[in-house]
Amino acid sequence: MGVKLGILGLGTVGTGTVQLLQDSRFRHPLLQEVEIYRVGVRSLDKPRAVALPKSVLTTDLEAIVTDPEIDIVVEVIGGLEPARSLILKAIQNGKHVVTANKAVISRFGNKIFSAANQAGVYVMLEAAVGGGIPVIQPLKQSLRVNRIHTVTGIVNGTTNYILWRMQTEGSHFSDVLADAQRLGYAEADPTADVDGLDAADKIAILASLAFGGLIKLENVYCEGIRQVSKTDIAYAEKLGFIIKLLAIAKRTTPSPSSPISVRVHPTLVPKAHPLASINDVNNAILIEGEPIGQVMFFGPGAGAGATASAVSSDILNLVAAIKTSTTTLNPLLPCRNQEYCQIVPMAELITRFYARFLTKDQPGVIGKLGTCFGNHRVSLESIVQTGFQGELAEIVVVTHDVREGDFRQALTEIQTLAAVDSIPSLLQVL
Amino acid sequence: MGVKLGILGLGTVGTGTVQLLQDSRFRHPLLQEVEIYRVGVRSLDKPRAVALPKSVLTTDLEAIVTDPEIDIVVEVIGGLEPARSLILKAIQNGKHVVTANKAVISRFGNKIFSAANQAGVYVMLEAAVGGGIPVIQPLKQSLRVNRIHTVTGIVNGTTNYILWRMQTEGSHFSDVLADAQRLGYAEADPTADVDGLDAADKIAILASLAFGGLIKLENVYCEGIRQVSKTDIAYAEKLGFIIKLLAIAKRTTPSPSSPISVRVHPTLVPKAHPLASINDVNNAILIEGEPIGQVMFFGPGAGAGATASAVSSDILNLVAAIKTSTTTLNPLLPCRNQEYCQIVPMAELITRFYARFLTKDQPGVIGKLGTCFGNHRVSLESIVQTGFQGELAEIVVVTHDVREGDFRQALTEIQTLAAVDSIPSLLQVL
Repeated sequence: MGVKLGILGLGTVGTGTVQLLQDSRFRHPLLQEVEIYRVGVRSLDKPRAVALPKSVLTTDLEAIVTDPEIDIVVEVIGGLEPARSLILKAIQNGKHVVTANKAVISRFGNKIFSAANQAGVYVMLEAAVGGGIPVIQPLKQSLRVNRIHTVTGIVNGTTNYILWRMQTEGSHFSDVLADAQRLGYAEADPTADVDGLDAADKIAILASLAFGGLIKLENVYCEGIRQVSKTDIAYAEKLGFIIKLLAIAKRTTPSPSSPISVRVHPTLVPKAHPLASINDVNNAILIEGEPIGQVMFFGPGAGAGATASAVSSDILNLVAAIKTSTTTLNPLLPCRNQEYCQIVPMAELITRFYARFLTKDQPGVIGKLGTCFGNHRVSLESIVQTGFQGELAEIVVVTHDVREGDFRQALTEIQTLAAVDSIPSLLQVL
Repeated sequence: MGVKLGILGLGTVGTGTVQLLQDSRFRHPLLQEVEIYRVGVRSLDKPRAVALPKSVLTTDLEAIVTDPEIDIVVEVIGGLEPARSLILKAIQNGKHVVTANKAVISRFGNKIFSAANQAGVYVMLEAAVGGGIPVIQPLKQSLRVNRIHTVTGIVNGTTNYILWRMQTEGSHFSDVLADAQRLGYAEADPTADVDGLDAADKIAILASLAFGGLIKLENVYCEGIRQVSKTDIAYAEKLGFIIKLLAIAKRTTPSPSSPISVRVHPTLVPKAHPLASINDVNNAILIEGEPIGQVMFFGPGAGAGATASAVSSDILNLVAAIKTSTTTLNPLLPCRNQEYCQIVPMAELITRFYARFLTKDQPGVIGKLGTCFGNHRVSLESIVQTGFQGELAEIVVVTHDVREGDFRQALTEIQTLAAVDSIPSLLQVL
C-alpha cells in the first residue's frame, strides 16, 4: 500500500521535491511507495515546472491537513503563518509532518513537538538547517552517543558568499550585497540573512538537538555582517584569520552539565581551521564531543535540489517508520525536550576578541591601551600599530580568552582616554 | 528491560566502547538501557583500563555468540578469523551484530547480509569506514534519495598522515614512514595501509552502499603510496595540486545505470578541491549525487574514542529498533544487495594523468612526446620541461580526460623512443 503525501506549497523546494519523487528510479526503492496525493498551491492557473494531475492540485490547504487519506504532510510554504497553524492542525489530525521551516521550528518547536508526541506522530526537519547536508538526523542518532560540547556552523549561504567575495576581491559589503542581489544570491530585503536572524533560527535548532534541551530564540545573541569592513578583512588576513559569520552553541566549561552560550556573530577564524576554507554559498557544521573529537559536515546550504534531497530523506525515514509501525514511536526520530537549556549571559562568556582603534599619533598610546586592558584582567595576544587613517594611528588588538564583561569594561575606560579617537571595529576570534 | 551486549574483544576499540557505555550520563538516554553482559578476551589476567566484574569476562567467544540471553554481539577483535565465523554464528543464533571489521565485511559482506536478512537480524558497520564519521548510516538513509554518481574518500589516516608530512616537510616516503611507525601512526608491518589494501576494503563497502549492488574486492583497482616521490609532490604543488591517496567509486557516464569504476590510487587533487585540505590522520568522504550536489563528511578516521563513538551509535540504533520491534525489519538499517555492480575495466576508465619523463637533453623531444600522445588520442593540458636530473632533462605532462587504455598505449610507444630514458612517475589527476 502506498504512503500518501499532502504537500503544502509548490515553490522552489516543493517543485524540487515533486521532481525528485516523480523520477524515483535508481533512488532508494522505498520512495516508489510514495504517492503525491494532494498539493496545496495559491493559484491553480500558474504555469508549473512539474506536471501534476488537476485533481492533485488544490488551493484549500486546510483540506489537505485534515484529509483522512493523507499519511504525511510536507510543509514547504515557509514563513510563520499559515505554516505554523497548518503544521499543528496536521498533527492534531494524526499526520506525520516534514517541514523545511526553520522560523516556525525555532519559535514554536516546543509546542509542535509536544503536540506530535501526544498525537503519536513524527515531525521531521532535516531541510530546516544546512540545506541538503544530513546533519539533523546524525544529531538525533549517531552523534548523540557523545557528550557534545560545541556546535559551530556556517549555516547561512548568503552571508558566507558575501564575506567570501569581500575577502577575495577586497570589495565593500554594500557593493557585494548589491551584486549578490542582482545574481539572486541575496533577497531584495536581505535583513534575515545579513543581520544573522536566519543563522540564529538554525543554531537554536542545532543547539536544542545537540544539548537535548529547549532554547528560547530570544536567548540567542545575534550580530550580522553589515559592520564588517574590508579593512578588517584585510587586517584579519594579515594576522592569519578569515572572517566568517559563525553560529556557535557551546558549553561554557568542560562539565557536561554546564550552561551553554548560543550566538551568531562575525568571527575571525584561524586559516588552518576546517571552517576557514568553506567558501561560496556552502554551509558547514562542525560538531565536537567526547569521545569523538571533531566531525564536520559540508555541503550546499540551499537550492532546490539540495533542499529537496533533505525533504525527501525525511519522507523516506517516515515511509520506513510507517512500514514497521508499532504503537510506540521510534525513539531516534522525534524531537522531545521538556527542559530549557541554561544559557550563560553574554557578559559571562569567555572568548577572544579583535578590536581596531583609531588614536592620536603620539608616543605611549600602546602602553596606555595595554595598561587599561591589564587593569580589567584582559590578557593580550598581540597589539600592533597597523598604519594610519589620515592623521590618526590605527592599532589592532587581539586578546587571549577573556570574560566578555571584563573586555567591555576595559573598552569603556579606553573610550575616555584623550588619545583615543574611536573604536571602529570589534569582532570575536575563534 | 535492558538490552544485553556480548562484546568480542577488549583491545583499543573494545575498551573505548566499554568506557563510553559505562559512563553514559549526558549521552543519549537510550544508552542507559544497555547492559554489558559478557566480554570475550584472550586472557583473563591481563591488566585492563576498564573495570568489569569477573563474571562478565570470558575466554569462550563461542559461548557469547550462542548465549540465549544476549541480544547484540559487538565484534571488535578484527582480522578475518575467528571474526567471520563468530559473526555468522551470532547471526544464526538470532543476535544482532555490530562490527568494525572492514576486512570481513568487504570480503564476506554478501554472505553475512544474506544470513542476517534470513535470520531477521541487523548487521551494523558504522565503524568499519571513516572511524567516528557518521557516513554508513547517511548512505543507507538520507543520501540514498539521491542518484549517487561519485564517492571519493580519504579513508586511510596513516597514508594521509605520511603524504601530508612529505608535503609539508619535503621529506622522503621511507623517512616519514619510519617516523610514523615510531609515533604509532603506522603499524610495524605497514602493508595494509601504504599499499592501499585498507582503503580498498573501505571503498568496496562505501560503493556497495552508494550504488546498491555488491562489489567483488578483486575488482577494486589498488595502488599504494610507496612510489610517490618528494619530487612529484613538489612538481604537483607547483602545478596547483596536492597528492592524496584517494579511494574512488564512480559511475562512468551520467546515466544512473552505467557501470562503475572502483579504485584506490595516489591522485593529484586540485588545491581548491575540498579533499585537498584534509590533513594529518583525518578522513573525509565526498559524496556527489543528483539532486544534492556535493556533500562531504570530515573527521577522525581512527582512534579509540572516534571508533567507540561509531560502534556505540550502531548499538543505539539497534536498541531503538529492538524497543520498537515488529516482525518486519526497519528497511533503512539492513544492507541487502542481491546483484553485483557492473565494474568497468581499468583500460576503459576515462581520467586525467600526470606523468614524469626523463629524456636526453636534445631539441625536439617535447614535440616527439606530444606527437606520440596525439597519435593515441591523448589530449594534453600541459607539457613542461621542469629541470634536469644529472644529464637528463625532466619533462612533466598533465593530460585532459583520456581513456586509460589509450594513455598506456601512448606510453608504450614513448618508451621505445631513443630520446626517452625512463618514466619514473605516473599518477592520476582528479
